[in-house]
Amino acid sequence: MKPVLQTEGEFEGWYYWPTEDFEFGTAGPFYYQKQGGEYVSRFRAAKKHLNGGRTVHGGCLMTFADFALFAIAHDDIDYYAVTVAFTSEFLSAAREGQLMEARGEVLKAGGSMIFVRGLMTADGTPCLNFSGTIKKLKPPKGS
Amino acid sequence: MKPVLQTEGEFEGWYYWPTEDFEFGTAGPFYYQKQGGEYVSRFRAAKKHLNGGRTVHGGCLMTFADFALFAIAHDDIDYYAVTVAFTSEFLSAAREGQLMEARGEVLKAGGSMIFVRGLMTADGTPCLNFSGTIKKLKPPKGS
Amino acid sequence: MKPVLQTEGEFEGWYYWPTEDFEFGTAGPFYYQKQGGEYVSRFRAAKKHLNGGRTVHGGCLMTFADFALFAIAHDDIDYYAVTVAFTSEFLSAAREGQLMEARGEVLKAGGSMIFVRGLMTADGTPCLNFSGTIKKLKPPKGS
Amino acid sequence: MKPVLQTEGEFEGWYYWPTEDFEFGTAGPFYYQKQGGEYVSRFRAAKKHLNGGRTVHGGCLMTFADFALFAIAHDDIDYYAVTVAFTSEFLSAAREGQLMEARGEVLKAGGSMIFVRGLMTADGTPCLNFSGTIKKLKPPKGS
Repeated sequence: MKPVLQTEGEFEGWYYWPTEDFEFGTAGPFYYQKQGGEYVSRFRAAKKHLNGGRTVHGGCLMTFADFALFAIAHDDIDYYAVTVAFTSEFLSAAREGQLMEARGEVLKAGGSMIFVRGLMTADGTPCLNFSGTIKKLKPPKGS
Repeated sequence: MKPVLQTEGEFEGWYYWPTEDFEFGTAGPFYYQKQGGEYVSRFRAAKKHLNGGRTVHGGCLMTFADFALFAIAHDDIDYYAVTVAFTSEFLSAAREGQLMEARGEVLKAGGSMIFVRGLMTADGTPCLNFSGTIKKLKPPKGS
Repeated sequence: MKPVLQTEGEFEGWYYWPTEDFEFGTAGPFYYQKQGGEYVSRFRAAKKHLNGGRTVHGGCLMTFADFALFAIAHDDIDYYAVTVAFTSEFLSAAREGQLMEARGEVLKAGGSMIFVRGLMTADGTPCLNFSGTIKKLKPPKGS
Repeated sequence: MKPVLQTEGEFEGWYYWPTEDFEFGTAGPFYYQKQGGEYVSRFRAAKKHLNGGRTVHGGCLMTFADFALFAIAHDDIDYYAVTVAFTSEFLSAAREGQLMEARGEVLKAGGSMIFVRGLMTADGTPCLNFSGTIKKLKPPKGS
């Protein structure tokens, strides 16, 4: 899961995971960048992200939150990890054209489990509160 | 939010919401159908839904679960409603080509809140447990 | 964590864990019994369980749900296990004197994680939807 | 739900809600105090709060978290409110004798819903991450 540096456009200098079909090519692209010791995630809400009520779809917000979980926990994952539980509360609606940003913190990084919480904003207004429980996987023996 | 009947292909006879940019055009299309009093949701996992580990992305599963919440609560929503809280646990991985299905039940439909729980399967194997708290919105006065 | 058989009163024939100070002596006692292959948990709501609004306190419901998680997962825990994540939705109020019951199912019992969901009722009316993610611990080496 | 000032002992100068049978008399007493604009909740873990593994019971932690939700949202509740959804992750074990503390923030206080998140510590070490969705109730007409 080697990240790639974006070299042009609004997210020049930000990173993405190109082998992620859903999160990069389909729902995204979503980007992250380390800023002062903290991993920040961003994307720009577009028409493709909207629901029938013309606000950003809850599934899009949760997909971006899942992306952000792994950005936030980046330094605690050696090999590979999976989300085992995810919770979220929808605080307010996000709209087309808004800059979506997710920040958060690793609350505990244990031997096998990582606990992360985060907050997403749309143009600076909180729109999603989220928490994720991540399980670290061990590399196959001999690798 | 008027559903449209799919008239060809694997999901002939199933319904979708065409005004949903993210859930229909971007992440989906996802479909639902009433079967013996129960609203069943389905889609076929494709390459576009995968993560870097070559399993269906958690964000895709949660987007489909959010779709399923509204299919399951279909008969309890008069006007419009929004998800206020969503929780999920990832039980097992789903793979490209598998038939994804979500079923569930309305646990309580109150005056303003609807509580739904559901279970998603991939080729019949449970892959996601989910619960959603939905808030009903009132139509604007005079409408 | 060896259970004890209750030999008198309303819950004669039901089991409890006597070494659990909080769940047995303080908040409880709570009881469980295997009925037709399913682990059922019960207690009778009393004045000591109420909140200021004279309904059973949410913390009491969640404590009983946490008890029920381990009753439901009883056959999948060899040594010892801990809850790592817990979610719940409060469907309706429960009142003093009502018979509280929790039933549920193990959705997945993996090598290290167990996923459980359950539903609690008060005199038969659903009052709490809950899900728990449980992590199995290994016995110390040499034991 | 008028709070009472504790006038002696370790929590002199802190407040509690005496009409709460479960949270005050049974599981608690739990206390809160406003410190620099923030509502802080505390109790001292005792033998009565333990589980069979000799750590503070998850149900006790969640009961205290539910108490803390209402302390944190104190200034946003005019009349009465109930928890509709609650999620938590168990970060580490808490032990007898430790000082339990919960702090948090109101993420959104809308017309009918309040969203709160918080973090609990045991002697300063994070032990529980929690989020609550609260619904405000309207006073009966004529009152």
